[in-house]
Amino acid sequence: MPIDSPRTSLQIRSLVKRSGELELSLAEDAIPEPQADEVVVRVEAAPMNPSDLGLLFGAADMKTAKASGTPERPVVTAQIPEAAMKAMAGRLDQSMPVGNEGAGVVVAAGNSPAAQALLGKTVAAIGGAMYTQYRCLPANQCMALPEGTTPAEGASAFVNPLTALGMVATMKREGHKALVHTAAASNLGQMLNRICMKDGIALVNIVRRPEQAQILRALGAKYICDQSAPTFMQDLTDALAATGATLAFDAIGGGKLAGQILNAMEAAVNRSATEYSRYGSATHKQVYIYGGLDRGPTEFTRSFGMAWGMGGWLLFPFLAKIGPEEAAKLKARVAAELKTTFASHYTKEVSLREALRLEEIAVYAKQATGEKYLLNPNRG
Amino acid sequence: MPIDSPRTSLQIRSLVKRSGELELSLAEDAIPEPQADEVVVRVEAAPMNPSDLGLLFGAADMKTAKASGTPERPVVTAQIPEAAMKAMAGRLDQSMPVGNEGAGVVVAAGNSPAAQALLGKTVAAIGGAMYTQYRCLPANQCMALPEGTTPAEGASAFVNPLTALGMVATMKREGHKALVHTAAASNLGQMLNRICMKDGIALVNIVRRPEQAQILRALGAKYICDQSAPTFMQDLTDALAATGATLAFDAIGGGKLAGQILNAMEAAVNRSATEYSRYGSATHKQVYIYGGLDRGPTEFTRSFGMAWGMGGWLLFPFLAKIGPEEAAKLKARVAAELKTTFASHYTKEVSLREALRLEEIAVYAKQATGEKYLLNPNRG
Repeated sequence: MPIDSPRTSLQIRSLVKRSGELELSLAEDAIPEPQADEVVVRVEAAPMNPSDLGLLFGAADMKTAKASGTPERPVVTAQIPEAAMKAMAGRLDQSMPVGNEGAGVVVAAGNSPAAQALLGKTVAAIGGAMYTQYRCLPANQCMALPEGTTPAEGASAFVNPLTALGMVATMKREGHKALVHTAAASNLGQMLNRICMKDGIALVNIVRRPEQAQILRALGAKYICDQSAPTFMQDLTDALAATGATLAFDAIGGGKLAGQILNAMEAAVNRSATEYSRYGSATHKQVYIYGGLDRGPTEFTRSFGMAWGMGGWLLFPFLAKIGPEEAAKLKARVAAELKTTFASHYTKEVSLREALRLEEIAVYAKQATGEKYLLNPNRG
Repeated sequence: MPIDSPRTSLQIRSLVKRSGELELSLAEDAIPEPQADEVVVRVEAAPMNPSDLGLLFGAADMKTAKASGTPERPVVTAQIPEAAMKAMAGRLDQSMPVGNEGAGVVVAAGNSPAAQALLGKTVAAIGGAMYTQYRCLPANQCMALPEGTTPAEGASAFVNPLTALGMVATMKREGHKALVHTAAASNLGQMLNRICMKDGIALVNIVRRPEQAQILRALGAKYICDQSAPTFMQDLTDALAATGATLAFDAIGGGKLAGQILNAMEAAVNRSATEYSRYGSATHKQVYIYGGLDRGPTEFTRSFGMAWGMGGWLLFPFLAKIGPEEAAKLKARVAAELKTTFASHYTKEVSLREALRLEEIAVYAKQATGEKYLLNPNRG
């Protein structure tokens, strides 16, 4: 690393104390010398995705958040409900870095050709601890971005694009012919909609409010079902019958939606049934819960027969399952279509210190559609 | 068929009327002449399993049951709650025969060698409509019982034994090393316990009451967790940690139990975790719901990470999945161990008319452990 480079990097830390308190702060660490296969990325853009906020806030009730510390080193504390502390057992009293992914410029590189090839390049990177000014990580966790791509444009090149492509790939692997997606006006949902339109896959978009339906309508989505409409279950069943979708990806998790989807799928399948089966249709109906926008309990009435499944879905085990060759194909598609199919939109760019302001937390912690923040750790 | 054989057969019918009324009755039908590959079985024993009762009673509230008809031809009617009528749509106004399986003597056979070979034999049979005096069905849906086996001993030779063996086979196919079973003191649960003891498989038995724990303890079960004990979650987690069980078969379906099992599995797996993962353990945890003793909603709090699944499990699709060769192996084992591993116990034997008495329905409709009825359609 050049002699005039910074030696330390400021980063966001999240600490869950045994006492039931969450503490967010900034820590300054030495930047390691990169090993042969490593590079140091000056991080200029990192999305604040729901999965990042899950680690950042833990199970804390952010309505109880209080500010302390100094303007230079702000500290935020919040209370964790006692019932939720059990789930925090594995991270007690450990100061954890945050940030799944981000993008920036490679300012130092180890001796290996792979690392050297990235020096000076703008790259997207994945590997955790990205909410930091300088991140030292293996070169193979970076993806060189096409010429003319800014860090902001490449910040979300991994999680959302690969998750959306993973949904389509899962549909094909598991023998379904169309998809259902919830919270469908999200950045991820818009990407999925673009992929499905481009690839000719029928997609049933479930949204929570009319404004979100409007966003998707403007993007050309064909099947949009608004949970707030009194005709929601009928609309959903009609869309499922029209598309034949028997696989859903649910970002919400809590409440009754996952079960409603299975019930509507069963009703749609049974529209063409010729005889009664006490066990319901033989068609397998599946909902994968990949997010937890509603952390409350999941509840469903099993009136959808016996051929059903519900389960968790997570990107990294999926990538491990398909293997490096298939994963590389997905990544190549992301790089090629980063500014079109996989474009992301952010409400606001914030610095590390701004990200710890209570008034900003109050906005981005809501995880509302159209309120996604982009963190720039090197913003002054 | 010999000339002096009966020409008609009395059978139980279940009818869901569009008006929201369930009607149970006896119908008398002509016994068909067996085709070349068919046999006529004089049914002398048929178990009243939960899956049979599901078809028999539909979604009716049997607390509203009323008797009418004549002593010779009793009729029972009951009301179906309006909310449940939607699930009945496929069977409206169809008088349906009942009874998955049973056993009896082959009194007539078609010309084929396979059918002729069964003539005069005591057989177990599966194929629906077994709550009848004489059932004409394909010879290949019958299994000749070993010499000296009574119809009562062979009545439950298909559903429970193959379901219990199917659970163990599923465990092996899906890479789990031990099992959890709920409502574990049932006939099926006792069978599963005997299979697991014989085969050296660790089985965690979950029961609802101390008396049921006692039944299993007397049978030599090692891991028994009583839901009514204040230490239930702790006991369950301990048993899961000791056995490494990550697959459960749940007969109950409704309520919080399925989710509690996943939570306890996650806690058990995390006892040996070395570092925190925000996504929970990477170990896949699965609950298959194969019954519906509680028809109410299923509710769970997702504090068991992302590597989980819940779903329906049904015997016939499972047998189709493993193919005829594997299925034949399971059936051969059942025949060989029918009086030991796969022995069933019944509270009471009833005739067709007795089965439609309100006082009997009040007992067997509860589906309580140790209250299983055996129907003998040829009992006077």
